[in-house]
Amino acid sequence: MNIILLGSGNVATHFGEALVKAGHRVTQVYSRTYAHASRLAGRIGAEPVAELAALDRKADLYLIAVSDDAIGRLAAQLPSSLQGLVVHTAGSVGLDVLAQPQRRYGVMYPVQTFSLAKAVDFSKVPLALEGSDEQVYTQLEQIAVTFSGRTFACDSKQRLAIHVAAVFVCNFTNHLYAVGADLLDRHGLAFDLVRPLILETAQKVLTYQPREVQTGPAVRNDSGTMEKHLALLADRPELMSLYQLISARIQSN
Amino acid sequence: MNIILLGSGNVATHFGEALVKAGHRVTQVYSRTYAHASRLAGRIGAEPVAELAALDRKADLYLIAVSDDAIGRLAAQLPSSLQGLVVHTAGSVGLDVLAQPQRRYGVMYPVQTFSLAKAVDFSKVPLALEGSDEQVYTQLEQIAVTFSGRTFACDSKQRLAIHVAAVFVCNFTNHLYAVGADLLDRHGLAFDLVRPLILETAQKVLTYQPREVQTGPAVRNDSGTMEKHLALLADRPELMSLYQLISARIQSN
Repeated sequence: MNIILLGSGNVATHFGEALVKAGHRVTQVYSRTYAHASRLAGRIGAEPVAELAALDRKADLYLIAVSDDAIGRLAAQLPSSLQGLVVHTAGSVGLDVLAQPQRRYGVMYPVQTFSLAKAVDFSKVPLALEGSDEQVYTQLEQIAVTFSGRTFACDSKQRLAIHVAAVFVCNFTNHLYAVGADLLDRHGLAFDLVRPLILETAQKVLTYQPREVQTGPAVRNDSGTMEKHLALLADRPELMSLYQLISARIQSN
Repeated sequence: MNIILLGSGNVATHFGEALVKAGHRVTQVYSRTYAHASRLAGRIGAEPVAELAALDRKADLYLIAVSDDAIGRLAAQLPSSLQGLVVHTAGSVGLDVLAQPQRRYGVMYPVQTFSLAKAVDFSKVPLALEGSDEQVYTQLEQIAVTFSGRTFACDSKQRLAIHVAAVFVCNFTNHLYAVGADLLDRHGLAFDLVRPLILETAQKVLTYQPREVQTGPAVRNDSGTMEKHLALLADRPELMSLYQLISARIQSN
Protein backbone atom coordinates (compact mmCIF):
# COMPACT_ATOMS: atom_id res chain seq x y z
CA MET A 1 0.00 0.00 0.00
CA ASN A 2 1.44 3.39 -1.04
CA ILE A 3 0.42 6.12 1.35
CA ILE A 4 0.90 9.89 1.35
CA LEU A 5 0.73 11.70 4.67
CA LEU A 6 -0.59 15.25 4.74
CA GLY A 7 0.55 16.83 7.98
CA SER A 8 3.74 16.58 10.02
CA GLY A 9 2.65 17.00 13.66
CA ASN A 10 1.91 14.66 16.48
CA VAL A 11 -0.83 12.57 14.92
CA ALA A 12 0.85 12.45 11.50
CA THR A 13 4.06 11.24 13.12
CA HIS A 14 2.39 8.47 15.11
CA PHE A 15 0.40 7.34 12.07
CA GLY A 16 3.47 7.46 9.85
CA GLU A 17 5.51 5.32 12.18
CA ALA A 18 2.72 2.81 12.75
CA LEU A 19 2.08 2.49 8.99
CA VAL A 20 5.73 1.91 8.17
CA LYS A 21 6.03 -0.59 11.01
CA ALA A 22 3.05 -2.46 9.53
CA GLY A 23 4.89 -2.77 6.22
CA HIS A 24 3.25 0.03 4.23
CA ARG A 25 5.22 2.52 2.18
CA VAL A 26 4.76 6.17 3.04
CA THR A 27 6.00 7.73 -0.19
CA GLN A 28 5.52 11.43 0.56
CA VAL A 29 4.97 13.69 3.56
CA TYR A 30 3.33 17.03 2.82
CA SER A 31 3.55 20.11 4.99
CA ARG A 32 3.29 23.80 4.01
CA THR A 33 6.53 24.20 5.93
CA TYR A 34 9.23 22.23 4.11
CA ALA A 35 11.38 21.78 7.23
CA HIS A 36 8.46 20.11 9.02
CA ALA A 37 7.72 17.80 6.10
CA SER A 38 11.41 16.99 5.90
CA ARG A 39 11.75 16.14 9.58
CA LEU A 40 8.96 13.55 9.54
CA ALA A 41 9.77 12.28 6.02
CA GLY A 42 13.34 11.60 7.16
CA ARG A 43 12.12 9.41 10.02
CA ILE A 44 9.98 7.18 7.82
CA GLY A 45 11.86 7.09 4.51
CA ALA A 46 9.48 9.33 2.56
CA GLU A 47 9.93 12.30 0.23
CA PRO A 48 9.16 15.69 1.80
CA VAL A 49 6.80 17.91 -0.18
CA ALA A 50 5.72 21.50 0.48
CA GLU A 51 3.50 22.05 -2.57
CA LEU A 52 0.25 20.23 -3.22
CA ALA A 53 1.04 20.28 -6.94
CA ALA A 54 4.02 18.00 -6.23
CA LEU A 55 1.83 15.23 -4.75
CA ASP A 56 2.00 11.88 -6.49
CA ARG A 57 -1.47 11.31 -8.02
CA LYS A 58 -1.14 7.51 -7.90
CA ALA A 59 -1.01 6.79 -4.17
CA ASP A 60 -3.58 4.40 -2.66
CA LEU A 61 -4.28 6.56 0.38
CA TYR A 62 -4.00 10.28 1.15
CA LEU A 63 -4.07 10.50 4.93
CA ILE A 64 -4.84 13.99 6.23
CA ALA A 65 -3.58 14.61 9.77
CA VAL A 66 -3.56 18.39 10.13
CA SER A 67 -5.33 20.61 12.66
CA ASP A 68 -9.12 20.21 12.67
CA ASP A 69 -9.92 23.60 11.19
CA ALA A 70 -7.43 23.12 8.33
CA ILE A 71 -8.82 19.78 7.10
CA GLY A 72 -11.66 21.15 4.96
CA ARG A 73 -9.47 23.78 3.32
CA LEU A 74 -6.70 21.31 2.54
CA ALA A 75 -9.13 18.70 1.22
CA ALA A 76 -10.66 21.28 -1.14
CA GLN A 77 -7.23 22.18 -2.53
CA LEU A 78 -6.17 18.62 -3.31
CA PRO A 79 -5.78 17.85 -7.02
CA SER A 80 -9.10 16.52 -8.36
CA SER A 81 -7.35 13.78 -10.30
CA LEU A 82 -6.37 11.72 -7.22
CA GLN A 83 -7.28 8.04 -7.59
CA GLY A 84 -6.72 6.92 -4.01
CA LEU A 85 -8.80 7.33 -0.88
CA VAL A 86 -8.79 10.72 0.83
CA VAL A 87 -9.06 10.16 4.57
CA HIS A 88 -8.89 12.40 7.62
CA THR A 89 -8.14 11.40 11.20
CA ALA A 90 -10.09 13.89 13.31
CA GLY A 91 -12.70 13.23 15.96
CA SER A 92 -14.78 16.35 15.68
CA VAL A 93 -14.75 16.93 11.90
CA GLY A 94 -17.53 15.45 9.80
CA LEU A 95 -16.95 13.10 6.88
CA ASP A 96 -18.62 15.55 4.49
CA VAL A 97 -15.80 18.14 4.56
CA LEU A 98 -13.91 15.73 2.28
CA ALA A 99 -16.71 15.40 -0.30
CA GLN A 100 -15.88 16.06 -3.97
CA PRO A 101 -17.38 14.68 -7.18
CA GLN A 102 -15.74 11.32 -8.05
CA ARG A 103 -13.73 11.30 -4.84
CA ARG A 104 -13.66 8.26 -2.54
CA TYR A 105 -13.14 9.39 1.02
CA GLY A 106 -13.39 8.40 4.63
CA VAL A 107 -12.29 8.85 8.22
CA MET A 108 -9.89 6.88 10.40
CA TYR A 109 -10.01 8.36 13.91
CA PRO A 110 -7.68 6.97 16.57
CA VAL A 111 -9.21 7.12 20.05
CA GLN A 112 -6.01 7.99 21.85
CA THR A 113 -3.93 10.96 22.99
CA PHE A 114 -0.57 11.38 21.31
CA SER A 115 2.48 13.32 22.34
CA LEU A 116 5.76 13.49 20.51
CA ALA A 117 7.66 12.63 23.68
CA LYS A 118 6.01 9.26 24.25
CA ALA A 119 5.62 6.23 22.00
CA VAL A 120 2.15 4.73 21.68
CA ASP A 121 1.42 1.09 20.91
CA PHE A 122 -0.92 1.55 17.94
CA SER A 123 -2.03 -2.07 18.14
CA LYS A 124 -3.99 -1.08 21.25
CA VAL A 125 -5.55 2.07 19.79
CA PRO A 126 -9.23 1.71 18.78
CA LEU A 127 -9.75 3.11 15.27
CA ALA A 128 -13.16 4.58 14.38
CA LEU A 129 -13.86 4.14 10.66
CA GLU A 130 -16.31 5.84 8.30
CA GLY A 131 -16.39 5.59 4.52
CA SER A 132 -18.16 7.50 1.75
CA ASP A 133 -19.58 4.15 0.62
CA GLU A 134 -19.47 0.46 1.58
CA GLN A 135 -16.54 -0.29 -0.68
CA VAL A 136 -14.47 2.52 0.79
CA TYR A 137 -15.34 1.32 4.28
CA THR A 138 -14.14 -2.19 3.45
CA GLN A 139 -10.88 -0.81 2.06
CA LEU A 140 -10.34 1.33 5.15
CA GLU A 141 -10.92 -1.69 7.33
CA GLN A 142 -8.38 -3.71 5.38
CA ILE A 143 -5.77 -1.01 5.91
CA ALA A 144 -6.71 -0.40 9.54
CA VAL A 145 -6.41 -3.99 10.70
CA THR A 146 -2.80 -4.06 9.54
CA PHE A 147 -1.76 -1.67 12.31
CA SER A 148 -4.63 -1.38 14.80
CA GLY A 149 -5.88 -4.25 16.92
CA ARG A 150 -9.35 -2.80 17.07
CA THR A 151 -11.47 -1.14 14.40
CA PHE A 152 -15.12 -0.21 14.49
CA ALA A 153 -17.74 1.54 12.36
CA CYS A 154 -18.84 4.93 13.59
CA ASP A 155 -20.75 7.77 11.90
CA SER A 156 -19.75 11.43 12.22
CA LYS A 157 -22.15 12.16 15.09
CA GLN A 158 -20.94 9.16 17.08
CA ARG A 159 -17.36 10.16 16.39
CA LEU A 160 -18.07 13.62 17.79
CA ALA A 161 -19.56 11.98 20.90
CA ILE A 162 -16.37 9.93 21.33
CA HIS A 163 -14.36 13.11 20.96
CA VAL A 164 -16.40 14.88 23.66
CA ALA A 165 -16.09 11.82 25.93
CA ALA A 166 -12.34 11.89 25.29
CA VAL A 167 -12.20 15.53 26.38
CA PHE A 168 -13.80 14.54 29.70
CA VAL A 169 -11.78 11.39 30.38
CA CYS A 170 -8.46 12.69 29.06
CA ASN A 171 -8.13 16.49 28.76
CA PHE A 172 -10.32 17.37 31.75
CA THR A 173 -8.91 14.52 33.81
CA ASN A 174 -5.43 15.85 33.13
CA HIS A 175 -6.60 19.24 34.37
CA LEU A 176 -7.77 17.62 37.62
CA TYR A 177 -4.28 16.12 37.90
CA ALA A 178 -2.93 19.67 37.50
CA VAL A 179 -5.26 20.93 40.24
CA GLY A 180 -3.93 18.20 42.53
CA ALA A 181 -0.31 19.04 41.65
CA ASP A 182 -0.94 22.70 42.39
CA LEU A 183 -2.61 21.97 45.76
CA LEU A 184 0.25 19.72 46.81
CA ASP A 185 2.82 22.27 45.71
CA ARG A 186 1.16 25.01 47.77
CA HIS A 187 1.55 22.79 50.84
CA GLY A 188 5.16 21.87 50.19
CA LEU A 189 4.36 18.39 48.91
CA ALA A 190 5.45 16.59 45.75
CA PHE A 191 3.05 15.56 42.97
CA ASP A 192 4.80 12.20 43.04
CA LEU A 193 2.84 11.33 46.20
CA VAL A 194 -0.41 10.92 44.25
CA ARG A 195 1.01 9.16 41.19
CA PRO A 196 0.25 5.63 42.49
CA LEU A 197 -3.28 6.82 43.28
CA ILE A 198 -3.74 8.23 39.77
CA LEU A 199 -2.59 4.98 38.20
CA GLU A 200 -4.80 2.84 40.46
CA THR A 201 -7.83 5.04 39.69
CA ALA A 202 -7.31 4.53 35.95
CA GLN A 203 -6.56 0.82 36.28
CA LYS A 204 -9.73 0.26 38.28
CA VAL A 205 -11.97 1.31 35.38
CA LEU A 206 -10.13 -0.98 32.98
CA THR A 207 -12.21 -3.78 34.48
CA TYR A 208 -15.09 -1.94 36.17
CA GLN A 209 -17.61 0.65 35.03
CA PRO A 210 -16.76 4.03 36.65
CA ARG A 211 -20.06 4.28 38.54
CA GLU A 212 -19.42 0.95 40.24
CA VAL A 213 -16.15 2.12 41.75
CA GLN A 214 -16.95 5.73 42.68
CA THR A 215 -15.40 6.50 46.06
CA GLY A 216 -14.85 9.62 48.17
CA PRO A 217 -16.77 11.86 50.54
CA ALA A 218 -19.40 12.96 47.99
CA VAL A 219 -20.69 9.49 47.17
CA ARG A 220 -20.68 8.64 50.92
CA ASN A 221 -22.55 11.89 51.68
CA ASP A 222 -19.82 12.62 54.20
CA SER A 223 -20.63 16.30 54.69
CA GLY A 224 -18.16 16.72 57.58
CA THR A 225 -15.20 15.82 55.37
CA MET A 226 -16.51 17.91 52.49
CA GLU A 227 -16.73 20.94 54.79
CA LYS A 228 -13.12 20.44 55.88
CA HIS A 229 -12.09 20.25 52.23
CA LEU A 230 -13.96 23.42 51.34
CA ALA A 231 -12.37 25.19 54.32
CA LEU A 232 -8.93 24.26 52.99
CA LEU A 233 -9.93 25.75 49.61
CA ALA A 234 -11.44 28.90 51.18
CA ASP A 235 -8.95 31.25 49.51
CA ARG A 236 -9.60 29.71 46.10
CA PRO A 237 -13.23 30.38 45.14
CA GLU A 238 -12.82 28.90 41.64
CA LEU A 239 -11.66 25.59 43.07
CA MET A 240 -14.47 25.65 45.61
CA SER A 241 -16.99 26.00 42.75
CA LEU A 242 -15.42 23.11 40.89
CA TYR A 243 -15.39 21.01 44.07
CA GLN A 244 -19.05 21.76 44.74
CA LEU A 245 -20.19 21.24 41.17
CA ILE A 246 -18.56 17.82 40.77
CA SER A 247 -19.55 16.70 44.28
CA ALA A 248 -23.18 17.62 43.59
CA ARG A 249 -23.08 15.67 40.33
CA ILE A 250 -21.65 12.61 42.12
CA GLN A 251 -24.35 12.86 44.79
CA SER A 252 -27.19 13.13 42.28
CA ASN A 253 -25.99 10.18 40.19
CA MET B 1 5.07 -6.59 66.55
CA ASN B 2 1.62 -7.34 68.01
CA ILE B 3 -1.06 -5.25 66.37
CA ILE B 4 -4.78 -4.80 67.02
CA LEU B 5 -6.96 -3.57 64.18
CA LEU B 6 -9.99 -1.44 65.01
CA GLY B 7 -12.29 -1.52 62.00
CA SER B 8 -13.21 -4.21 59.50
CA GLY B 9 -13.86 -2.38 56.22
CA ASN B 10 -11.88 -1.69 53.14
CA VAL B 11 -8.90 0.13 54.64
CA ALA B 12 -8.72 -2.17 57.69
CA THR B 13 -8.69 -5.19 55.40
CA HIS B 14 -5.89 -3.89 53.19
CA PHE B 15 -3.81 -2.85 56.21
CA GLY B 16 -4.43 -6.17 57.94
CA GLU B 17 -3.30 -8.19 54.95
CA ALA B 18 -0.24 -6.01 54.34
CA LEU B 19 0.80 -6.21 58.01
CA VAL B 20 0.49 -9.98 58.14
CA LYS B 21 2.37 -10.31 54.85
CA ALA B 22 5.16 -8.21 56.38
CA GLY B 23 5.47 -10.68 59.26
CA HIS B 24 3.54 -8.83 61.98
CA ARG B 25 0.94 -10.52 64.17
CA VAL B 26 -2.55 -9.04 64.09
CA THR B 27 -3.87 -10.47 67.34
CA GLN B 28 -7.37 -8.98 67.42
CA VAL B 29 -9.83 -7.33 65.03
CA TYR B 30 -12.45 -5.10 66.63
CA SER B 31 -15.77 -4.15 65.10
CA ARG B 32 -19.04 -3.22 66.81
CA THR B 33 -20.60 -5.82 64.53
CA TYR B 34 -19.19 -9.20 65.52
CA ALA B 35 -19.81 -10.77 62.10
CA HIS B 36 -17.68 -8.04 60.47
CA ALA B 37 -14.86 -8.47 62.98
CA SER B 38 -15.05 -12.20 62.45
CA ARG B 39 -14.88 -12.03 58.66
CA LEU B 40 -11.66 -10.01 58.61
CA ALA B 41 -10.15 -11.76 61.64
CA GLY B 42 -10.64 -15.10 59.91
CA ARG B 43 -8.65 -13.91 56.88
CA ILE B 44 -5.63 -12.85 58.90
CA GLY B 45 -5.55 -15.29 61.81
CA ALA B 46 -6.76 -12.87 64.50
CA GLU B 47 -9.35 -13.03 67.27
CA PRO B 48 -12.60 -11.18 66.50
CA VAL B 49 -13.78 -8.78 69.21
CA ALA B 50 -17.01 -6.75 69.41
CA GLU B 51 -16.48 -5.11 72.83
CA LEU B 52 -13.75 -2.57 73.57
CA ALA B 53 -13.46 -4.03 77.08
CA ALA B 54 -12.20 -7.25 75.50
CA LEU B 55 -9.21 -5.57 73.85
CA ASP B 56 -5.81 -6.89 74.84
CA ARG B 57 -4.08 -4.02 76.73
CA LYS B 58 -0.58 -5.21 75.85
CA ALA B 59 -0.48 -4.79 72.07
CA ASP B 60 2.25 -2.64 70.50
CA LEU B 61 -0.07 -0.85 68.09
CA TYR B 62 -3.80 -0.08 68.01
CA LEU B 63 -4.56 0.77 64.41
CA ILE B 64 -7.87 2.59 63.93
CA ALA B 65 -9.34 2.22 60.45
CA VAL B 66 -12.99 3.19 60.84
CA SER B 67 -15.01 5.89 59.08
CA ASP B 68 -13.60 9.41 59.54
CA ASP B 69 -16.39 10.70 61.76
CA ALA B 70 -16.17 7.67 64.09
CA ILE B 71 -12.44 7.96 64.83
CA GLY B 72 -12.64 10.56 67.60
CA ARG B 73 -15.50 8.80 69.37
CA LEU B 74 -13.78 5.42 69.23
CA ALA B 75 -10.44 6.84 70.37
CA ALA B 76 -12.13 8.47 73.38
CA GLN B 77 -13.70 5.15 74.38
CA LEU B 78 -10.49 3.13 74.30
CA PRO B 79 -9.28 1.88 77.69
CA SER B 80 -6.94 4.45 79.22
CA SER B 81 -4.50 1.77 80.30
CA LEU B 82 -3.27 0.93 76.78
CA GLN B 83 0.52 0.84 76.55
CA GLY B 84 0.91 0.71 72.78
CA LEU B 85 0.61 3.39 70.12
CA VAL B 86 -2.88 4.53 69.14
CA VAL B 87 -2.84 5.38 65.43
CA HIS B 88 -5.47 6.33 62.89
CA THR B 89 -5.26 6.08 59.12
CA ALA B 90 -7.44 8.95 57.86
CA GLY B 91 -6.49 11.78 55.52
CA SER B 92 -8.87 14.45 56.71
CA VAL B 93 -8.85 13.83 60.48
CA GLY B 94 -6.38 15.72 62.66
CA LEU B 95 -3.85 14.05 64.94
CA ASP B 96 -5.39 15.76 67.97
CA VAL B 97 -8.60 13.71 67.99
CA LEU B 98 -6.49 10.90 69.47
CA ALA B 99 -5.03 12.99 72.32
CA GLN B 100 -5.33 11.63 75.89
CA PRO B 101 -3.10 12.11 78.93
CA GLN B 102 -0.24 9.59 78.88
CA ARG B 103 -1.26 8.27 75.47
CA ARG B 104 1.26 7.92 72.64
CA TYR B 105 -0.49 8.40 69.34
CA GLY B 106 -0.01 9.09 65.68
CA VAL B 107 -1.28 8.84 62.11
CA MET B 108 -0.38 6.51 59.26
CA TYR B 109 -2.27 7.66 56.18
CA PRO B 110 -1.99 5.63 52.97
CA VAL B 111 -2.24 7.80 49.85
CA GLN B 112 -4.20 5.30 47.81
CA THR B 113 -7.74 4.25 46.96
CA PHE B 114 -8.79 0.83 48.17
CA SER B 115 -11.62 -1.41 47.08
CA LEU B 116 -12.38 -4.85 48.42
CA ALA B 117 -12.56 -6.25 44.91
CA LYS B 118 -8.99 -5.37 43.93
CA ALA B 119 -5.66 -6.15 45.60
CA VAL B 120 -3.24 -3.26 46.12
CA ASP B 121 0.53 -3.58 46.27
CA PHE B 122 1.16 -1.82 49.57
CA SER B 123 4.87 -1.59 48.86
CA LYS B 124 3.99 1.13 46.33
CA VAL B 125 1.63 3.07 48.59
CA PRO B 126 3.10 6.28 50.04
CA LEU B 127 2.44 6.43 53.80
CA ALA B 128 2.09 9.85 55.45
CA LEU B 129 3.27 9.68 59.08
CA GLU B 130 2.65 11.97 62.05
CA GLY B 131 3.49 11.25 65.69
CA SER B 132 2.54 12.85 69.00
CA ASP B 133 6.30 13.19 69.66
CA GLU B 134 9.63 12.40 68.01
CA GLN B 135 9.91 8.99 69.61
CA VAL B 136 6.45 7.97 68.42
CA TYR B 137 7.30 9.19 64.94
CA THR B 138 10.43 7.04 64.88
CA GLN B 139 8.46 4.01 66.01
CA LEU B 140 5.81 4.61 63.36
CA GLU B 141 8.50 4.85 60.73
CA GLN B 142 10.05 1.57 61.85
CA ILE B 143 6.70 -0.16 61.47
CA ALA B 144 5.82 1.60 58.22
CA VAL B 145 8.99 0.67 56.35
CA THR B 146 8.27 -3.02 56.92
CA PHE B 147 5.29 -2.89 54.57
CA SER B 148 5.42 0.40 52.63
CA GLY B 149 8.14 1.32 50.17
CA ARG B 150 7.69 5.00 50.84
CA THR B 151 7.08 6.88 54.07
CA PHE B 152 7.16 10.61 54.71
CA ALA B 153 6.51 13.10 57.50
CA CYS B 154 3.40 15.20 57.13
CA ASP B 155 1.47 17.36 59.57
CA SER B 156 -2.33 17.34 59.85
CA LYS B 157 -2.81 20.35 57.57
CA GLN B 158 -0.59 18.87 54.87
CA ARG B 159 -2.39 15.57 55.20
CA LEU B 160 -5.71 17.33 54.62
CA ALA B 161 -4.22 18.97 51.51
CA ILE B 162 -3.19 15.54 50.21
CA HIS B 163 -6.70 14.30 50.90
CA VAL B 164 -8.24 17.19 48.93
CA ALA B 165 -5.76 16.61 46.10
CA ALA B 166 -6.73 12.93 46.17
CA VAL B 167 -10.39 13.87 45.79
CA PHE B 168 -9.52 15.80 42.62
CA VAL B 169 -7.17 13.26 41.04
CA CYS B 170 -9.11 10.15 42.09
CA ASN B 171 -12.76 10.67 43.07
CA PHE B 172 -13.45 13.55 40.66
CA THR B 173 -11.42 11.93 37.90
CA ASN B 174 -13.53 8.80 38.29
CA HIS B 175 -16.61 10.97 37.94
CA LEU B 176 -15.26 12.31 34.64
CA TYR B 177 -14.80 8.70 33.55
CA ALA B 178 -18.48 8.18 34.43
CA VAL B 179 -19.47 11.23 32.36
CA GLY B 180 -17.55 9.75 29.42
CA ALA B 181 -19.19 6.35 29.90
CA ASP B 182 -22.61 7.95 29.98
CA LEU B 183 -21.98 10.03 26.82
CA LEU B 184 -20.77 6.98 24.93
CA ASP B 185 -23.72 4.92 26.12
CA ARG B 186 -26.18 7.54 24.88
CA HIS B 187 -24.64 7.27 21.43
CA GLY B 188 -24.63 3.47 21.34
CA LEU B 189 -20.91 3.16 22.03
CA ALA B 190 -19.02 1.08 24.59
CA PHE B 191 -16.98 2.59 27.43
CA ASP B 192 -14.26 0.14 26.46
CA LEU B 193 -13.38 2.41 23.51
CA VAL B 194 -11.83 5.02 25.81
CA ARG B 195 -10.07 2.66 28.23
CA PRO B 196 -6.71 2.79 26.40
CA LEU B 197 -7.02 6.60 26.38
CA ILE B 198 -7.71 6.69 30.13
CA LEU B 199 -4.69 4.52 30.85
CA GLU B 200 -2.41 6.54 28.58
CA THR B 201 -3.57 9.81 30.20
CA ALA B 202 -2.67 8.47 33.64
CA GLN B 203 0.62 6.93 32.50
CA LYS B 204 1.70 10.20 30.93
CA VAL B 205 1.73 12.03 34.27
CA LEU B 206 3.78 9.26 35.88
CA THR B 207 6.77 10.88 34.21
CA TYR B 208 5.54 14.37 33.36
CA GLN B 209 3.91 17.16 35.32
CA PRO B 210 0.23 17.48 34.28
CA ARG B 211 0.60 21.04 33.00
CA GLU B 212 3.36 19.98 30.60
CA VAL B 213 1.13 17.43 28.89
CA GLN B 214 -2.23 19.24 28.80
CA THR B 215 -3.88 18.60 25.43
CA GLY B 216 -7.31 19.22 23.91
CA PRO B 217 -9.29 22.05 22.34
CA ALA B 218 -9.26 24.32 25.42
CA VAL B 219 -5.47 24.56 25.72
CA ARG B 220 -5.24 25.07 21.93
CA ASN B 221 -7.94 27.77 22.11
CA ASP B 222 -9.75 25.84 19.40
CA SER B 223 -13.11 27.58 19.76
CA GLY B 224 -14.58 25.91 16.66
CA THR B 225 -14.20 22.45 18.18
CA MET B 226 -15.41 23.63 21.59
CA GLU B 227 -18.58 24.99 19.97
CA LYS B 228 -19.23 21.66 18.27
CA HIS B 229 -18.77 19.91 21.62
CA LEU B 230 -21.17 22.27 23.39
CA ALA B 231 -23.72 21.77 20.61
CA LEU B 232 -23.57 18.01 21.20
CA LEU B 233 -24.20 18.66 24.91
CA ALA B 234 -27.02 21.15 24.23
CA ASP B 235 -29.70 19.02 25.93
CA ARG B 236 -27.54 18.58 29.05
CA PRO B 237 -27.06 22.02 30.63
CA GLU B 238 -25.23 20.59 33.68
CA LEU B 239 -22.61 18.98 31.48
CA MET B 240 -22.29 22.18 29.44
CA SER B 241 -21.53 24.09 32.67
CA LEU B 242 -18.92 21.55 33.68
CA TYR B 243 -17.40 21.65 30.18
CA GLN B 244 -17.24 25.44 30.22
CA LEU B 245 -15.90 25.69 33.76
CA ILE B 246 -13.03 23.26 33.24
CA SER B 247 -12.23 24.62 29.77
CA ALA B 248 -12.03 28.17 31.15
CA ARG B 249 -9.69 26.96 33.91
CA ILE B 250 -7.44 25.23 31.36
CA GLN B 251 -7.37 28.38 29.23
CA SER B 252 -6.47 30.66 32.13
CA ASN B 253 -3.68 28.39 33.40
